[in-house]
Amino acid sequence: MHQRNKVIDLIAPANQTLKPAIQAHLDDLTKPRASLGRLEKIALQYCLATGTVKPIIGKKKIFCFACDHGVVAEGVSAYPKAVTPQMVMNMLAGGAAVNVLARHVGAELLVVDMGVDDPLAHAPGLCRKKIRGGTGNIARGPAMTVDEAWRAIETGIDLACAAQAERITLIGTGEMGIANTTPSSALLAAFLGCPVADVTGRGTGIDDASLAKKVAVIQKALAVNRERLVDPIQTLAALGGFEIAAICGLVLGAAARQIPVVVDGFISSAGALAAISMNRAVLDYLFFSHLSHEKGHRVFFKRFGIKPILDLDMRLGEGTGAALAFSIIEAALKIYNEMATFSSAGVSTRDKA
Amino acid sequence: MHQRNKVIDLIAPANQTLKPAIQAHLDDLTKPRASLGRLEKIALQYCLATGTVKPIIGKKKIFCFACDHGVVAEGVSAYPKAVTPQMVMNMLAGGAAVNVLARHVGAELLVVDMGVDDPLAHAPGLCRKKIRGGTGNIARGPAMTVDEAWRAIETGIDLACAAQAERITLIGTGEMGIANTTPSSALLAAFLGCPVADVTGRGTGIDDASLAKKVAVIQKALAVNRERLVDPIQTLAALGGFEIAAICGLVLGAAARQIPVVVDGFISSAGALAAISMNRAVLDYLFFSHLSHEKGHRVFFKRFGIKPILDLDMRLGEGTGAALAFSIIEAALKIYNEMATFSSAGVSTRDKA
Repeated sequence: MHQRNKVIDLIAPANQTLKPAIQAHLDDLTKPRASLGRLEKIALQYCLATGTVKPIIGKKKIFCFACDHGVVAEGVSAYPKAVTPQMVMNMLAGGAAVNVLARHVGAELLVVDMGVDDPLAHAPGLCRKKIRGGTGNIARGPAMTVDEAWRAIETGIDLACAAQAERITLIGTGEMGIANTTPSSALLAAFLGCPVADVTGRGTGIDDASLAKKVAVIQKALAVNRERLVDPIQTLAALGGFEIAAICGLVLGAAARQIPVVVDGFISSAGALAAISMNRAVLDYLFFSHLSHEKGHRVFFKRFGIKPILDLDMRLGEGTGAALAFSIIEAALKIYNEMATFSSAGVSTRDKA
Repeated sequence: MHQRNKVIDLIAPANQTLKPAIQAHLDDLTKPRASLGRLEKIALQYCLATGTVKPIIGKKKIFCFACDHGVVAEGVSAYPKAVTPQMVMNMLAGGAAVNVLARHVGAELLVVDMGVDDPLAHAPGLCRKKIRGGTGNIARGPAMTVDEAWRAIETGIDLACAAQAERITLIGTGEMGIANTTPSSALLAAFLGCPVADVTGRGTGIDDASLAKKVAVIQKALAVNRERLVDPIQTLAALGGFEIAAICGLVLGAAARQIPVVVDGFISSAGALAAISMNRAVLDYLFFSHLSHEKGHRVFFKRFGIKPILDLDMRLGEGTGAALAFSIIEAALKIYNEMATFSSAGVSTRDKA
């Protein structure tokens, strides 16, 4: 267990000593001070996270983790479980939304099987990291053992490590798993200590009756697993999913290596929340791509005082929000790297400071 | 005058008959219905505006109109007037923010001199359409004659016409002009009939005392020009600027040709508002890129019930917001064009309709 905590302990808050130099450069660009608003804040955070005044725009990669969930048996999703492997195949064929958006922004996509209940025998391009063919039903017991949760986390950590070797400079999270808003809402309720109804939404589109049932299922999951909710890793194991644990690991591994991570939507935020609960310093390395339409995401952001980059009423996951945010973050870095300065362009500064 | 109104009369609301077919295609893509939120609405609007179920993603172009303003003499800006030609030169050299962002999204940029108070003798790449070397001081009289306003509008219309010939499929607005938030706020107050203080902000960054003076200057402009504020063209001539009138014309010309236009920030919205006041049907062809940090932009959007695409606290203009929104709109069209359908990908649809 000590060894397993090593990466978590390695993560330190971003060093702030470069902040004055970075801010001075932003203020010297040919525009009124701070007039590019959040683009300038994004550039600042990126520079601080990577510890440089000259940020590098390298390769971008989205990791989409797929998993099935035992809790689907409780009727919490509008879609049948068979959709998880079908969508994995759709992604490998390039036809899913995340494929389109990853191509649009020039990002690579890796689809990782963390626990799909299907052998996915003929699946070229699939990264095979299956822990088990689906989690346990959280309404009746834990989703996974603590050892399984660690193994899923380590998969994420290893992928972040490999990304560094591949010269990836921006990592995006993503997921696919029928019913996975249910464990995500359960994790938010447990980690944030808030009422289940406040963080439980319609997922792929359930009706009022199914929503009421979903809330009851999550309340039951919290009750059944009550004695396990004693620390972040045991909470994640009890209520999460293999894909959520892998996202947690990806965030931890990237933060330990100072690689900024773009967190996709609601489910990815649940994985990031587990990582934040293990070491709050990871927040310095995270960009939150968008405010999901899924209820509960707003609660998460409010708790941390974060305003995500985009607000487009999306609720699809997969990494679609991360892909779109990649483009904004890259724009911010290009502003920092490519704009002329007042002196170089011969532009007058303002009348008074 | 009759001839000059011709383009305005040509603009018709987007034909809605294709809506069911477009929506059916969006609903057949491999994602829960409506789960891509505003991306889907953007794709729908684009298809309706261009009258097709198979949208074409062609070339994108931003028109940045530059102009000086007589009202600068009242001390309403934090920057000296010399910055207008300096920034024009900076843009022609590729060092301004709009250059960086246009390159980032693969858009062309055309810088148009509508009325800079400088000969700009050595300015390769500049599109020369100067009406006069700066507008009149609106605190003492009209900004331009009605004939000058028409000529500026016609410049915009002609550029939209030329864009169609160049196979531009998405047009962005932009502007550069020291003091031009002042005429923009004046136009909003006049067209929306709201208090000057509600639509007047700090522009490039004036202090409290200068803001109070700016509000007083605009109130004076409205009083001095009161008898001229009788119709949209005379209001635009009295309070606007050559660049704002050109944006109005660009919007009118593009809408008449069913070319969607992405409206940049606060000043571009003032130009769009003049066009909307001439023919409300132009709204069907407009995408609003972002919510500016400039006070008054929120008032504009509230009046029309519009939520802009981005909200990044930007307040720079030039076309920077339009460039970023281009990328989101293009993403929406690629989703529509490139995603697999449920039947083609062999993905199960939801349990119940």
